[in-house]
Amino acid sequence: MRHVLRSQQFDEELLLLLFERAADLQTNFDDPRRHRMMGQLLAGSMLFNVFYEPSTRTRMSFAAAAQHLGMQVVTTENAREFSSSAKGETLEDSIRVMCEYRPDVIVLRHHEDGAAERAAVVSGVPVINAGDGGGQHPTQALLDLYTIKHELERISNLHLLIGGDLARGRTARSLAYLISKFPGNRITFVSPRELSVGEDIKQHLSEHEVPYSETEELRDALPEADVVYWTRTQLERHKGQILDPFVLGVDELALMKQDTVLLHPLPRIGEITVEVDSDPRAAYFRQAGNGMFVRMALIEWVLELLAPGPTSDDSQERT
Amino acid sequence: MRHVLRSQQFDEELLLLLFERAADLQTNFDDPRRHRMMGQLLAGSMLFNVFYEPSTRTRMSFAAAAQHLGMQVVTTENAREFSSSAKGETLEDSIRVMCEYRPDVIVLRHHEDGAAERAAVVSGVPVINAGDGGGQHPTQALLDLYTIKHELERISNLHLLIGGDLARGRTARSLAYLISKFPGNRITFVSPRELSVGEDIKQHLSEHEVPYSETEELRDALPEADVVYWTRTQLERHKGQILDPFVLGVDELALMKQDTVLLHPLPRIGEITVEVDSDPRAAYFRQAGNGMFVRMALIEWVLELLAPGPTSDDSQERT
Amino acid sequence: MRHVLRSQQFDEELLLLLFERAADLQTNFDDPRRHRMMGQLLAGSMLFNVFYEPSTRTRMSFAAAAQHLGMQVVTTENAREFSSSAKGETLEDSIRVMCEYRPDVIVLRHHEDGAAERAAVVSGVPVINAGDGGGQHPTQALLDLYTIKHELERISNLHLLIGGDLARGRTARSLAYLISKFPGNRITFVSPRELSVGEDIKQHLSEHEVPYSETEELRDALPEADVVYWTRTQLERHKGQILDPFVLGVDELALMKQDTVLLHPLPRIGEITVEVDSDPRAAYFRQAGNGMFVRMALIEWVLELLAPGPTSDDSQERT
Repeated sequence: MRHVLRSQQFDEELLLLLFERAADLQTNFDDPRRHRMMGQLLAGSMLFNVFYEPSTRTRMSFAAAAQHLGMQVVTTENAREFSSSAKGETLEDSIRVMCEYRPDVIVLRHHEDGAAERAAVVSGVPVINAGDGGGQHPTQALLDLYTIKHELERISNLHLLIGGDLARGRTARSLAYLISKFPGNRITFVSPRELSVGEDIKQHLSEHEVPYSETEELRDALPEADVVYWTRTQLERHKGQILDPFVLGVDELALMKQDTVLLHPLPRIGEITVEVDSDPRAAYFRQAGNGMFVRMALIEWVLELLAPGPTSDDSQERT
Repeated sequence: MRHVLRSQQFDEELLLLLFERAADLQTNFDDPRRHRMMGQLLAGSMLFNVFYEPSTRTRMSFAAAAQHLGMQVVTTENAREFSSSAKGETLEDSIRVMCEYRPDVIVLRHHEDGAAERAAVVSGVPVINAGDGGGQHPTQALLDLYTIKHELERISNLHLLIGGDLARGRTARSLAYLISKFPGNRITFVSPRELSVGEDIKQHLSEHEVPYSETEELRDALPEADVVYWTRTQLERHKGQILDPFVLGVDELALMKQDTVLLHPLPRIGEITVEVDSDPRAAYFRQAGNGMFVRMALIEWVLELLAPGPTSDDSQERT
Repeated sequence: MRHVLRSQQFDEELLLLLFERAADLQTNFDDPRRHRMMGQLLAGSMLFNVFYEPSTRTRMSFAAAAQHLGMQVVTTENAREFSSSAKGETLEDSIRVMCEYRPDVIVLRHHEDGAAERAAVVSGVPVINAGDGGGQHPTQALLDLYTIKHELERISNLHLLIGGDLARGRTARSLAYLISKFPGNRITFVSPRELSVGEDIKQHLSEHEVPYSETEELRDALPEADVVYWTRTQLERHKGQILDPFVLGVDELALMKQDTVLLHPLPRIGEITVEVDSDPRAAYFRQAGNGMFVRMALIEWVLELLAPGPTSDDSQERT
């Protein structure tokens, strides 16, 4: 059975297949005839949106993705507090019961590391990990990579600037990891020293011969970047520090090349100023929307409507 | 783009058009063949029900309205507490992200005055204001007016009694405002002196030459009224006061004309006794249902399936 | 109008009719052609899932049941806290307003005994009780009985072992009650003395000539049982007691006959060990799934798509 559990499970070939499908869905969405057909693709199928902790945006993105494909959606938004889980039931029992209600896919958001893997072991249907604790959030990682592909028409031979809180930021770490699967990329990490990227990532990059450097000076790094991936510096944990150099505004924009793509996983609190939004290089809202199309492609993939990947064996079509 | 932001945005012509459509939908609902067709009208379209604060009834009314028309609905019920908003994201950013998930309409309930206007500025799709703070709640205002039209077959040449907490009650104020658009109406306001209607409303009525009077004596005012619009006196803020005169029961009903219509925005806590419910003049439950049909008509209007109004220019049909 | 309010409302004939339909739905679910048809059966109909207190599992089961039949679902999950109810509105008013939004069925979960009966009095559409306070939870009771029928192909001439907290456990009490409608059954109750079954149930069984006995020794009772219905002993209320004898594990399983069916209403906290799960006699997860199919049959019944029962008079088909 196909599950989406970790961003690392996808090899280069499968990533490109998923991105191609996401791009097709995105193109078809605005064609009236194809839009109508898209809305019937998964009619009669059902997705369970099982969120043990609220994550409004991810939940809405999956719900919209499923419903744009014609699926029905059953949702629980705060299962940790309200469900049998609160009475002491194990996640495994909860998943087994939910499978008996006959969904075709379970999207799971959970507060514990590894929850999605545990769910997949007992689940009778595919599980898509929508974030588990401090662990994986593979659909976020994939949408970031897809956005680069979609905006620049390539994910190789790029110079990426990845900035913000690199010590704890999951998205930044995942992107650094994933980009190493494609040839010719290099990375400049920009962060305050105390938020710099972990040794595990740096070691991974060395092993895969991905050149990288580290700096605290955003402005030095901007002119070279093809992709600027900017994240929150999580000010709430760094009170008293001056983190002004980590605000990206129109002055910083002026240093960027004309075809650079500026990404951010959102929400932003102030680390990119609103003046930047109207610049065509600001791709972060498009990036959020891309997430929905990547999720549509992943739903199709776990339902075996797309060609097989490494976690499955064959069966081209679903009967 | 068409938005529903303020009850004042609708002129007399558009109000009548919307009310005609709402009445058609209401009639068709009980015809099996037309009901089936109605359920396909907006198939393939999607409404986002975005509630920053819970308002169960309004939310259910919009969800039912949309789904009776065949739309898909994605809901968030308590976005203020749970969403990116809680992390400090602006409403504008949240709306821009949600638009990327490709809804056709956003219904927005928010705790801040003017939130719907702010959302409309950045939204790529029509916004319907489902109440923003102490500000507007235009669909409630319209359903009240529609109910008068639907029950009495006219919204002109009426004597309205509007009673309860007129100082703070949004619905009573909105009705007084809207009724002034139609000729020949007059109003008697009934309230405890300290809850009497604001000067702004009185000035508006004077400017539009709508005769009005004020009294604390409900029973004096009842025999003349064509419409009795009764609201809560919000006892929780007036402890220690005797507000018994502001309970409407069978004795008060006996003073009303046989064709008077008794309205209430609901919920009621005791200001209309349950004995009144079975009287055919008691229209408040029908009024609640009318709200759903008005919302259906408004959804069709913002999608440009109804003829243009003042906030749009033309395009009779949606492609 | 047909409502589902109490498990006692169903006579033997109607129970068998409902179980037959549930079994058909269950069989058809896995046939592609019939599954597609099933998904259209109630297209254009709408179910309101009105939960005054959260009960994630019951809510999801009803939502999935309705949507597998093609219905649309409007949900409120915590109406006690968030709705007009919190402002002091009566349940009766809330139900009357919701009926105006034109659902075809209302599923009601409420925290007060008798709430479903009160709702049914004023409702314009069928009400299905999804649990009201310490009172009734008829769909749970029916699914337990259905599971016995489905697993053993009979609900008569059975020896049932019903164990756990029999003093307060609603499901165990309901099953003892319902099983008395069918001939030739006998019951052994197993519980700590202080959690033993109430006199009301014992009197009911005596009146219906259902032999029963009581014991604290699970192991003595296991070898004879055709059905083992095991429930929580609700440890949280019995701290300090050794309730180990009330854990059912592989050793206890070894004492059971090969064709015995082991049921549990779930969630379980530890009173059945996970080692038991893989035994074919462990039917508790299938039991949870059966609940959805029973609910599907009940939805069809209240909509008068199934032959009449005692609470209705005729009309074989819905127009």
